[in-house]
Amino acid sequence: MSQADILIIGAGPCGLFTVFEAGLLKLKCHLVDALPTAGGQLSEIYPKKPIYDIPGYPEVIAEDLVNNLLKQIEPFKPEFTLGERAEKLEKLENGQFKLTTNHGTEIQAPVIFIAGGLGCFEPRKPPIGNIADFELKGVDYIIKNPEKYRDQNVVIAGGGDSALDWSIYLSSVAKRVTVIHRRTEFRGALESVHKLIELVENKQVDLITEAEVVGLQGEDRLQKVLVKTPQSTMELATDYFIPLFGLTPKLGPIADWNLNIDKNAILVNTLDYSTNVPGIFAVGDINTYEGKLKLILCGFHETTVAVQSAYRIVHGGKKPSFKYTTVTGIEQL
Amino acid sequence: MSQADILIIGAGPCGLFTVFEAGLLKLKCHLVDALPTAGGQLSEIYPKKPIYDIPGYPEVIAEDLVNNLLKQIEPFKPEFTLGERAEKLEKLENGQFKLTTNHGTEIQAPVIFIAGGLGCFEPRKPPIGNIADFELKGVDYIIKNPEKYRDQNVVIAGGGDSALDWSIYLSSVAKRVTVIHRRTEFRGALESVHKLIELVENKQVDLITEAEVVGLQGEDRLQKVLVKTPQSTMELATDYFIPLFGLTPKLGPIADWNLNIDKNAILVNTLDYSTNVPGIFAVGDINTYEGKLKLILCGFHETTVAVQSAYRIVHGGKKPSFKYTTVTGIEQL
Repeated sequence: MSQADILIIGAGPCGLFTVFEAGLLKLKCHLVDALPTAGGQLSEIYPKKPIYDIPGYPEVIAEDLVNNLLKQIEPFKPEFTLGERAEKLEKLENGQFKLTTNHGTEIQAPVIFIAGGLGCFEPRKPPIGNIADFELKGVDYIIKNPEKYRDQNVVIAGGGDSALDWSIYLSSVAKRVTVIHRRTEFRGALESVHKLIELVENKQVDLITEAEVVGLQGEDRLQKVLVKTPQSTMELATDYFIPLFGLTPKLGPIADWNLNIDKNAILVNTLDYSTNVPGIFAVGDINTYEGKLKLILCGFHETTVAVQSAYRIVHGGKKPSFKYTTVTGIEQL
Repeated sequence: MSQADILIIGAGPCGLFTVFEAGLLKLKCHLVDALPTAGGQLSEIYPKKPIYDIPGYPEVIAEDLVNNLLKQIEPFKPEFTLGERAEKLEKLENGQFKLTTNHGTEIQAPVIFIAGGLGCFEPRKPPIGNIADFELKGVDYIIKNPEKYRDQNVVIAGGGDSALDWSIYLSSVAKRVTVIHRRTEFRGALESVHKLIELVENKQVDLITEAEVVGLQGEDRLQKVLVKTPQSTMELATDYFIPLFGLTPKLGPIADWNLNIDKNAILVNTLDYSTNVPGIFAVGDINTYEGKLKLILCGFHETTVAVQSAYRIVHGGKKPSFKYTTVTGIEQL
């Protein structure tokens, strides 16, 4: 069984930065994430998209931020258990927690940080009978690398920001982008709606509104989608069908750990972002408190503050001594 | 009289980032700082030093971080009043605040953000009768650009981190570095002390302990310092004398604004970092609350949260709509 000072559930930006702040206090971290790579939503949902609100970065591509965070925590040599979901949490007689993953890996630590972001999130799938047959064969629910669609025919379904943004983006990558939306109004940013309409007027994107994809056809892989409008049903030849109806966040097994939960988020004390269970902290998008903002920069702060209390738990109440990296550097720590 | 939505006192990293978060909510900012350039302590105290604990930056030179922040807030076109100290704050009949600087500049705003860092800080000066005569003529209390000392003889006094760090740094820049310290022990990071001792053993730095600079001599500019030890007093020819005895932070005029103060810092409510005076917020190193960490990254969080409340004040109670820059971008805002 692996032993750490802090066991971090979730290897998104907040979980990764926890390793840095813990490392400054010489606390050893072990990260567990159900996803196969570090980075959380940044790697999984929008790796190629720019983020503008990370302080000190006028613009940073999501996957670059992840790589920078990985570089930043390198000196502290965290352990990773990726592609395994945190399943069972027990309190041992020695006062420590034991986590067991869905693959049976066991990790022991006196402190747990839940940095699980949206939790285990799943894409909302349209109710098309045979859609599962075409998954990985032309049907994608998440766009990881837009280059996959270069010079391909793509049908995107949805009317929110994700559908708008990717339609606009892929219009200059794919051979042909067709947007299918049930309504005539979009739910996204006004500017994106204007941009899409401009692309439609310039015939760079096809738009079919008050329409729905109701069937999928193909031999080995997807070849056609059936599109139903109030007037008729038509067949549309395509290489890819990408329904972008959002993600359903699920807390998953964490919901059974006796933590106080409010609307899919873990309630914390803003003094140190501790939960109702002593030794368990929740930081980043997965926690909630009055005035909570789901921003990466807020998670960075939360975990920095929480790590101070974690130190006290690991060291029997001793207060950590506060140091500035500008004065002490990192190597010597 | 200039008008803004948020008047920010202090153009350090926290004040600068306030402009960004306020800008996302279309709030217009005006910054006032007693220093002649933006960046606060980063520009004034350690512009050339690396910082390691800004999330997403494995290492960033302080002045580069300032420049990146300035670039990040550019789209929001903040106004700056630099080199003027915030002096008098009045509440007007229209419910707004009016700030008057020591140069008589007047700015009006419904919301005040105090992001004053250490306040108006002053270097602690050694009690040498004629030291003022040599200021800017060989005596420096703060090292702004170490290149100034290239191939020069430098005497540094002090035994803390600042004296240690700069002695080590300047040993490879200056012609000769002599460190004068009253005691035989140093108060700085152990690693720095070891490094200095190594440099002394390799004859790259001269160290005189249990000693004090008690006199300064020179015609147009500094030429010699008088060094007193328990045994004797000696003359030491030098181009520069740099006493690094730390800075004394002073709240300055802010102390008279009826704010609740605790040990030179402004007490705030952690719900939104508001002070006891409605409409006045305090963010970054100048505020205090239970568990406060004086870290730049914490100030970034504090001001982001505070700006949400500022929006409500400016817009008569209306809640801001929350947007992700990854979805909406910046230009279109």
